[in-house]
Amino acid sequence: MMADNAYDVIVIGAGPGGYVAAIRAAQLGLKTIVVEREHMGGICLNWGCIPTKAMLRSSEVYHLMQRAKEFGLSAQGIDYDLDAVVARSRAIAKQLNGGVSHLLKKNKVTALMGAATITAPGQVLVKTAKGDETLSAEHIIIATGARARELPGLEGDGDLVWTYKTALTPPRMPKKLLVIGSGAIGIEFANFYNTLGVDTTVVEVMDRVMPVEDAEISAFAQKAFEKQGMKVRTKTMVKQLDRGQGSVTAHIEQNGKVTTEVFDTVISAVGIVGNVENLGLEALGVEVDRTHITTDAYCRTAVAGVYAIGDVAGAPWLAHKASHEGVMVAEMIAGGTPHPVKPESIAGCTYCTPQVASVGHTEAQAKEAGYDVRVGRFPFIGNGKAIALGEAEGMVKTVFDAKTGELLGAHMIGAEVTELIQGYVVGRQLETTEEDLMQTVFPHPTLSEMMHESVLDAWDRAIHI
Amino acid sequence: MMADNAYDVIVIGAGPGGYVAAIRAAQLGLKTIVVEREHMGGICLNWGCIPTKAMLRSSEVYHLMQRAKEFGLSAQGIDYDLDAVVARSRAIAKQLNGGVSHLLKKNKVTALMGAATITAPGQVLVKTAKGDETLSAEHIIIATGARARELPGLEGDGDLVWTYKTALTPPRMPKKLLVIGSGAIGIEFANFYNTLGVDTTVVEVMDRVMPVEDAEISAFAQKAFEKQGMKVRTKTMVKQLDRGQGSVTAHIEQNGKVTTEVFDTVISAVGIVGNVENLGLEALGVEVDRTHITTDAYCRTAVAGVYAIGDVAGAPWLAHKASHEGVMVAEMIAGGTPHPVKPESIAGCTYCTPQVASVGHTEAQAKEAGYDVRVGRFPFIGNGKAIALGEAEGMVKTVFDAKTGELLGAHMIGAEVTELIQGYVVGRQLETTEEDLMQTVFPHPTLSEMMHESVLDAWDRAIHI
Repeated sequence: MMADNAYDVIVIGAGPGGYVAAIRAAQLGLKTIVVEREHMGGICLNWGCIPTKAMLRSSEVYHLMQRAKEFGLSAQGIDYDLDAVVARSRAIAKQLNGGVSHLLKKNKVTALMGAATITAPGQVLVKTAKGDETLSAEHIIIATGARARELPGLEGDGDLVWTYKTALTPPRMPKKLLVIGSGAIGIEFANFYNTLGVDTTVVEVMDRVMPVEDAEISAFAQKAFEKQGMKVRTKTMVKQLDRGQGSVTAHIEQNGKVTTEVFDTVISAVGIVGNVENLGLEALGVEVDRTHITTDAYCRTAVAGVYAIGDVAGAPWLAHKASHEGVMVAEMIAGGTPHPVKPESIAGCTYCTPQVASVGHTEAQAKEAGYDVRVGRFPFIGNGKAIALGEAEGMVKTVFDAKTGELLGAHMIGAEVTELIQGYVVGRQLETTEEDLMQTVFPHPTLSEMMHESVLDAWDRAIHI
Repeated sequence: MMADNAYDVIVIGAGPGGYVAAIRAAQLGLKTIVVEREHMGGICLNWGCIPTKAMLRSSEVYHLMQRAKEFGLSAQGIDYDLDAVVARSRAIAKQLNGGVSHLLKKNKVTALMGAATITAPGQVLVKTAKGDETLSAEHIIIATGARARELPGLEGDGDLVWTYKTALTPPRMPKKLLVIGSGAIGIEFANFYNTLGVDTTVVEVMDRVMPVEDAEISAFAQKAFEKQGMKVRTKTMVKQLDRGQGSVTAHIEQNGKVTTEVFDTVISAVGIVGNVENLGLEALGVEVDRTHITTDAYCRTAVAGVYAIGDVAGAPWLAHKASHEGVMVAEMIAGGTPHPVKPESIAGCTYCTPQVASVGHTEAQAKEAGYDVRVGRFPFIGNGKAIALGEAEGMVKTVFDAKTGELLGAHMIGAEVTELIQGYVVGRQLETTEEDLMQTVFPHPTLSEMMHESVLDAWDRAIHI
């Protein structure tokens, strides 16, 4: 029998990568402990994916209420209560946080709150509120996640300059808001506050918003945001923030010219850095490259028995990538021969209005990779369900290899696309070609019919455009 | 050169089967005419899928508005204007109707309004407003659709007893409503009027609501409807309607006992019959079985050169089945070798709240077919996005062949499932097994993650329950 503090697997970090790895390992009969420094469920569940989606749901319903007349409805005095919106979001995060503890218990995973350091191969020291504990295991999975990058001068202060934590528990409603960065996090907050009536400016250093998306999607998104009254400035950089009494003067550089503008609130969303500190990585010989742990396709570090999964192991910084890596590593440790998680089959979703979702190559990436491409497009305005919903703003774009018919990438903007994208993901998993997607009977009347039409369009066979 | 009235293809009926067949035929270079008796786009677009979805969107938004407080929002005097709700629905139908005419024109399909009869193989007589026209073509596609079945004594009268047309353009708001039949049409109307506050009773002759769905989904749906205040009576039959002055007395039989109940409005939704009359089918020798034209898997009738597609050719009575059959027949006529449309890969969607969507075998059907099944389930309450949306009511059920891992069927109830089901449809098209679906990375946080968990659960590997 194992000693009390001896495990098969120690997981450091209980975000979606860590807790899923631990549960899967335990399901496979491994004695597993998960050590968490801050909160069960990690950033994603407590300060990321889930509470933002809860807040965005409130702003979405608010926006629908404002559109009541369009649907033959009416109401007076439509308003929001910021405290109540935030309280709902926090309650949901708390509920799911409790859910993770329950799942760990149910699967017989030991959970320990504390800060872990790997002191030697197979050895972990945990500083808990009650003192130090020493754990041992043949396999250690690092799943410590990532946190907001803080650029010098743009650091959050919880009052004038917010990172995502403050933006999720705002001390007040901003009046004039500057959002630095138009990635998923920046755009979601910009969208939330703009929808609730805040004068919102987004600044992006790249030449387009949501720069990881296909260029056509970025262009479509920018137009949609501007139509909603958001100010969007690309190829633009915030050089300096002068924090005053209740206001911030931002020094903004565009086309080599620096101008200043005063805001009462700034949200900084300029990327993330991996949580690699105080884990004992250097002494252990685990390689770290620009705040991320270097791994092979199987999430193995250079040190035998030490794995890294999820955000701390690098892009894409997405919970579903983390949890699949967690399952893969758990199965590998248990003696299975799982497949590596393929980054190009991992969809990205942004929950702004209109929503954005994509998987695989953009058109530009496909061309750069040397493919002869066929591209299909379909607009929401050509779809009956979109019109019936009053959501006719959006498009679907599909990129195929002209030679083999392989679906290289899919890019969507519009209502519910975060829920639609999985159909293409399933297709890519099964190595679909255009032929199979053309024969697939997408149900009517649904938005998903556009996924079919976009494929047809790539081969000049679309029906409804 | 062909004579003016000579075509390669004549399509009779411009519903989603007919107009898609015509467009595809024209795209393939065939000289094509479509003859329509009533309205471009058929029932689906004018009196079916589309206008009902428009009306259900209004009731959905109305319901969300009533839930404002839950989302941290507020409003007073939330109300609907039935005329405005209907006007929006009619405007959308009209817009799409115009869209079909535009698409036909763009694809160089001739459109002719009139009633068509096949007078001899290759010969069609059309009675138009301007007199008779005679057309000829080697290939004739019958796509005349279907209409509401009218049971003796339960016929619609446009006042007290409504069929779907009246229910879509109601002369008044019902106070006490009886809906006869709990198929998709009956349930959607029951849901719409019940949500707007009407005292609604649904009567179903079978032992459960939505009897084509998996039994667990039916049970879940019934509970959800009853929670919304709807009265649901199964194994129950309306034997007689006594129409009075502003009221109808229904004679309702349950467990061999007949009782009476007074309603001010009745909606009759007891199935549909194919439009097979006055087409000249009997003289031509085209076989008709219980109001539906008999065809082979390629939609060919017993008479060479005569095809039947869509509702008039039998179940499933779904627009997407019709349009795929239309494409298949057009491609076959043009010399291609397309695949038949597989009924078991066609999803069915019902747009009530909660939504219902399914594809393939129910658990009972799979067992009946001799499969050794593995069944997975996942509840919406275990999904973060569902909770964030405030839509935690629902479930996903998957049925697999235990031996081969083939996905035999998928059954869903809950928010957005009509948009989710396509992922399983794509999977079935590509002959997925459980292994591929398990490896598919469904994005987080989405409702679609439940599609993954339900698969995992079938193999005792679910993470979040």
